[in-house]
Amino acid sequence: MKFILTILLVLVSLLALVLMQAITASIVIAESRDNPDKPAGNVVLIIGDGMDDHQITIARNYLKGVRGRLVLDEMPVRSAVQVLTIDETEPTRPRFVADSANSATAIATGTVTSRGRIATSAREDQDIQTIVELAQQAGMRTGLVTTASVTDATPASFAAHIKFRRCENPDSMVFMYYGRLADCSKDQKKNGGPGSISEQLAASRLDVLLGGGLKHFTVNEEGSSESVERLARSEGFHVIRTKFELSNAHPGKRLLGLFSDSHLAVRLRGENGRSAEKPSPGLPAPMACENNPAYKDTPSLKLMTQKALEILSHGNGSGFFLMIESASIDKQSHQRNACGSIGELAQLDETLAYVLKFADIHPETLVVVTADHGQAAQLVPSDSLFSGRGIPVYTPGSMVRIKMPGGGEMGINYATNEFVAEEHTGVAVPLYANDIGKGLFRPFITQPEIFNIIRSFLGL
Amino acid sequence: MKFILTILLVLVSLLALVLMQAITASIVIAESRDNPDKPAGNVVLIIGDGMDDHQITIARNYLKGVRGRLVLDEMPVRSAVQVLTIDETEPTRPRFVADSANSATAIATGTVTSRGRIATSAREDQDIQTIVELAQQAGMRTGLVTTASVTDATPASFAAHIKFRRCENPDSMVFMYYGRLADCSKDQKKNGGPGSISEQLAASRLDVLLGGGLKHFTVNEEGSSESVERLARSEGFHVIRTKFELSNAHPGKRLLGLFSDSHLAVRLRGENGRSAEKPSPGLPAPMACENNPAYKDTPSLKLMTQKALEILSHGNGSGFFLMIESASIDKQSHQRNACGSIGELAQLDETLAYVLKFADIHPETLVVVTADHGQAAQLVPSDSLFSGRGIPVYTPGSMVRIKMPGGGEMGINYATNEFVAEEHTGVAVPLYANDIGKGLFRPFITQPEIFNIIRSFLGL
Repeated sequence: MKFILTILLVLVSLLALVLMQAITASIVIAESRDNPDKPAGNVVLIIGDGMDDHQITIARNYLKGVRGRLVLDEMPVRSAVQVLTIDETEPTRPRFVADSANSATAIATGTVTSRGRIATSAREDQDIQTIVELAQQAGMRTGLVTTASVTDATPASFAAHIKFRRCENPDSMVFMYYGRLADCSKDQKKNGGPGSISEQLAASRLDVLLGGGLKHFTVNEEGSSESVERLARSEGFHVIRTKFELSNAHPGKRLLGLFSDSHLAVRLRGENGRSAEKPSPGLPAPMACENNPAYKDTPSLKLMTQKALEILSHGNGSGFFLMIESASIDKQSHQRNACGSIGELAQLDETLAYVLKFADIHPETLVVVTADHGQAAQLVPSDSLFSGRGIPVYTPGSMVRIKMPGGGEMGINYATNEFVAEEHTGVAVPLYANDIGKGLFRPFITQPEIFNIIRSFLGL
Repeated sequence: MKFILTILLVLVSLLALVLMQAITASIVIAESRDNPDKPAGNVVLIIGDGMDDHQITIARNYLKGVRGRLVLDEMPVRSAVQVLTIDETEPTRPRFVADSANSATAIATGTVTSRGRIATSAREDQDIQTIVELAQQAGMRTGLVTTASVTDATPASFAAHIKFRRCENPDSMVFMYYGRLADCSKDQKKNGGPGSISEQLAASRLDVLLGGGLKHFTVNEEGSSESVERLARSEGFHVIRTKFELSNAHPGKRLLGLFSDSHLAVRLRGENGRSAEKPSPGLPAPMACENNPAYKDTPSLKLMTQKALEILSHGNGSGFFLMIESASIDKQSHQRNACGSIGELAQLDETLAYVLKFADIHPETLVVVTADHGQAAQLVPSDSLFSGRGIPVYTPGSMVRIKMPGGGEMGINYATNEFVAEEHTGVAVPLYANDIGKGLFRPFITQPEIFNIIRSFLGL
């Protein structure tokens, strides 16, 4: 009897142990999901400006063929993101189409604001803390990389606070913009403000800031006889201006790279520089895409990213936040250059491939790719679905017909207006993430949630 | 001692029971996920014709507000689908924009074909077996529900085979269509073919077929003095024509419902029937959406679905395949009626809610929602991003400015052509699935893969 009792006691103990382990395991999993004790490391956020599903499909068809796949397409997490914008004078009223300033602000701060604003609140004009500032406060490294001027709306919204996106340097603080007064005087240093965007970036604690926009740094700092570039140096930045210098840059210094006066040149253009054309009297002649000669000495988005990741990860135990923008998917669509947008989406896709390799070696790296808002370009029939009729059927706007490497012609329509720049659209945009993002992003989210998810992932 | 022993025995038994249950449950889940021995039962495939992300965002903003969610948005699986089309005369050459015939054929058969074709191959004109036919061969029930004529491209591609989508009845087998010869004479019965689309549907083994298109059934069968409707009756269909008859229909009979001469009336329209308008000389006045008086006696997509699910599931141990189409998201966009498209997307969304409830009670039901192709409508600023300038900035096409229930105005642009019907677009389209679809759909797939996944799910 004693023997049986002993066996039973052992059995009960074993069973209890197994049960306890199962319960403990499920608690641990739940805890690490819901409430991570340690910051998970690094976040690389890649923004394709204006990169909606039309832009992606157009680029996929051209770069990989209709049955091909971009690196983007292989990402294990895919969501849709609702873009939110509010009215400046009546902030309870929604607006249905964003610009890059208010949409980048939503991603960078989690707060919805009005068009044109850089990390400041609608109407109240209050500064809103950004993910970059939160990461810096937690001792993490931070970086911004863009193919635009570093002072442009998307990068600026992560590390500056100002009323209007075009107040990019000390000489552009009060001016007329598309017929409206752009007045950033409240942000001027003489009025107790932090100064223009370039001055704020020069004085920032960013570890790496790469892109264009030299002209915003060669002007003098407000109330000084020294340039903003000089200010950046005095704040500890190593400043470089060429692809050669970038290739030879080594980790260990905070790096400011300004590789052109304004936005960086784009990689592709239409044949002989052709843009979209009005179809009247007949459809525009099909054209090939060709290399843009102006791109020659421009550092690629991938090279800038490579250097940024070196600087951010070198001997770093505290993690980092890096935002990378392919800016001219949008800018080329504004200017009706379909080939230009395709080339910049190719830049984003090859940069993503590089970042995913980095994440393979540094598995605590969350990689998120998204767009800030939709763009005008539409993939349309290269000749109308109704072209059999005797009467001409074609867009009232402008059109590009691209000769495709895999055969056939692809039509791209630009017809949101007849101004020098097309409109943005209000379509929800895609979001992608790598494996570590599984379970973090529901299939449909709003743009401010991206901030919340990244913040929580970094434990900030 | 005996008492303690008894308690211990009871405890051991209880613990063993708990453990066994946990183990068994995990094995069952793993088996049913990884290697289902039995066909999983039912598939409900919901197609929003032309329902791309612009259409969804426009409808969400109007129906739920910018911060609201459609039922669609709550689906746990979300992918993007590349639409594929090939050239009729040179089938190796891709075309970049689909029509509803070739895209529905890709979904229904897994084979890429050329525009206008109904489950037949490009150039060769061979019939291609559809998922409906495969399901019928396996003894499963099948149904098609649409707000279009039941002979329209999307439903037709699941249960008929013909060279050209407009060969919808015996009197329309050879005719001119947008200046091109539409010649389905090879498919005529006198030439050994299966006849027009309506004749093929009347002779089909479908258990339920609901929608519009009465006029294609009241004409006489080819070479007969009896109507196609009469043919359907003789083939065993119970034919009904009114919402009242539908409401009172009971399971047990094969049901053909033809609720209007052509496509069903849509639920919403612009104020006083207004469509998009040319902005010149100024932007069109904002308008509300209103109920369409013509919709009054029209059965809703949800009611048709409810009845179809009753018929398909009643006393059925073999599973079923049901395709449900909200057709006029597309048709209303062709006609530049933004309110019309919104109302038909609302119909799809409330139908989805009903289908998800059905799937809760019948958990072996895979629910898939997708679109066949993109559409022209673009969500644009209600007044230009550049409207501050003195010069007018607006679309060269047509525009609707909708007064929003939650305040503000939403702009919708139609500018792919100036013909009576706008173009489709070639954008990748969204796909959604319920929980049982997790792991079946990668984040990016091509349209024919939908067929493969459904076929494999049904074990066909």
